[in-house]
Amino acid sequence: MTVEIVSENKSHGGRQLVVKHASAATSTDMTYSIFLPPQAERGGKLPVVWYLSGLTCTPANVTEKGEYRAACAEHGLVFIAPDTSPRGDGVPDDPDAAYDFGLGAGFYVDASQQPWARNYRMWTYVTEELPALVASELPVDLDRQGITGHSMGGHGALTIALSHPRRFRSVSAFAPIVAPSQVPWGEKALTGYLGDDRSKWRKHDAVALIEDGARLRDLLVDVGDADPFLQKELRPELLQKACAAAGIDLTLRIQPGYDHSYYFISTFMADHLRWHAERLR
Amino acid sequence: MTVEIVSENKSHGGRQLVVKHASAATSTDMTYSIFLPPQAERGGKLPVVWYLSGLTCTPANVTEKGEYRAACAEHGLVFIAPDTSPRGDGVPDDPDAAYDFGLGAGFYVDASQQPWARNYRMWTYVTEELPALVASELPVDLDRQGITGHSMGGHGALTIALSHPRRFRSVSAFAPIVAPSQVPWGEKALTGYLGDDRSKWRKHDAVALIEDGARLRDLLVDVGDADPFLQKELRPELLQKACAAAGIDLTLRIQPGYDHSYYFISTFMADHLRWHAERLR
Repeated sequence: MTVEIVSENKSHGGRQLVVKHASAATSTDMTYSIFLPPQAERGGKLPVVWYLSGLTCTPANVTEKGEYRAACAEHGLVFIAPDTSPRGDGVPDDPDAAYDFGLGAGFYVDASQQPWARNYRMWTYVTEELPALVASELPVDLDRQGITGHSMGGHGALTIALSHPRRFRSVSAFAPIVAPSQVPWGEKALTGYLGDDRSKWRKHDAVALIEDGARLRDLLVDVGDADPFLQKELRPELLQKACAAAGIDLTLRIQPGYDHSYYFISTFMADHLRWHAERLR
Repeated sequence: MTVEIVSENKSHGGRQLVVKHASAATSTDMTYSIFLPPQAERGGKLPVVWYLSGLTCTPANVTEKGEYRAACAEHGLVFIAPDTSPRGDGVPDDPDAAYDFGLGAGFYVDASQQPWARNYRMWTYVTEELPALVASELPVDLDRQGITGHSMGGHGALTIALSHPRRFRSVSAFAPIVAPSQVPWGEKALTGYLGDDRSKWRKHDAVALIEDGARLRDLLVDVGDADPFLQKELRPELLQKACAAAGIDLTLRIQPGYDHSYYFISTFMADHLRWHAERLR
């Protein structure tokens, strides 16, 4: 497999890498960023937190604005941010180039519909190919994994964690889409990638997964009450209700005055990484 | 004066603003960013740290990548980042659109040469107009000011502090250009903006200012030893020699493995803000 280090910068005592590689899952090149904290220099494998990004993002957004490196250096955590969709020549995009479908909007599913099915296989990429790749090349301990994400990436983190209950010791999310089957962003994406049969959407809907019996031990979610997507797209109350019915220990914090941006995410990033570190050590 | 709030986002308990205003100094609109920490809600004026950016930057670079808000919230510091040059229709640029002269490269001087003299008046803008503006509208205590900056902005911070010894209680810099008269970036800029008479450059050269008798009580400077501009443009050893001769208490830290990027700056930002906070409280 062709792997290229796009950039490497020392930061907070560790190494911030951006890596490009050929992906079998998406039949494209894919780019991800990985922060190796200073503890990586000592040898041995380190716990890892996966961060899945939101609509329109590349790994650059969180890498530049996420303010995660200080906390990762403090706790000895590797931090990996995959891209949000396949990209490149020949990858189909939304016919209207909308921000919420196609490029930058893979929704962490394996598409079954045309013309998306060939490249839009982000579920397989994030859950299988990329973990195997990083574990083969970098000091990452796959027995100590946590996962988080923002918005569409919060949806990805929740659905992936609920579908792999033994894989992730810690799960959190920033302003996640918790019930894509019930909101406009999700209905558009799941129809487009998976087709009209809503029974096929349930394993890509955190609330539906919980209703269908999937479980997590505990879960931290922050959402800003000034988030413009709160009521129409995020709907954390649906997650709260599902977790209550299922006995999942959800810590849901509605943060006053915060919006949907990285100004919000960066504020609570250290809290989330502490949450993960406590469960991964 | 026309003042427009371009954006406002809650972050780390405070308010991150981007502000545009008409500038009499530059005869253009100017944009700056300002972080008001949570302590601003309590009333009363707060100490301020000025951050001057480097070549090619706008206020967005440090605002997005600088990782200063957590430390400002901890210490109760206002953080202000001005732009690096005038911008807009009619503002002349380097004829080759070079990155190191003209737009994004004002070098914190008042140009005397044509066609720059009308708009490129960053010295007056940063030392007079902008402080007066923010003090008139925001809870900023001009009796407790610190100043820092990066690269060209480190040059600006040092020369402005050395020229206003009673104004700034705390001074630091990240990878500053310490002796622009002796390095290519500086020689190009000072020739272009101030003309060939090198005697007129001395008040815009930190090492020359110190040689000519300007003083600071103490000073913190970080530079990475993997900074590609270290030996040709930054030359911290010249500052070290000048400070030693003048009895200025310089803390110069050569940081192993760090480059010239915001990955370097963000790593040491909290240290610098602690340095400022200790001197501003």
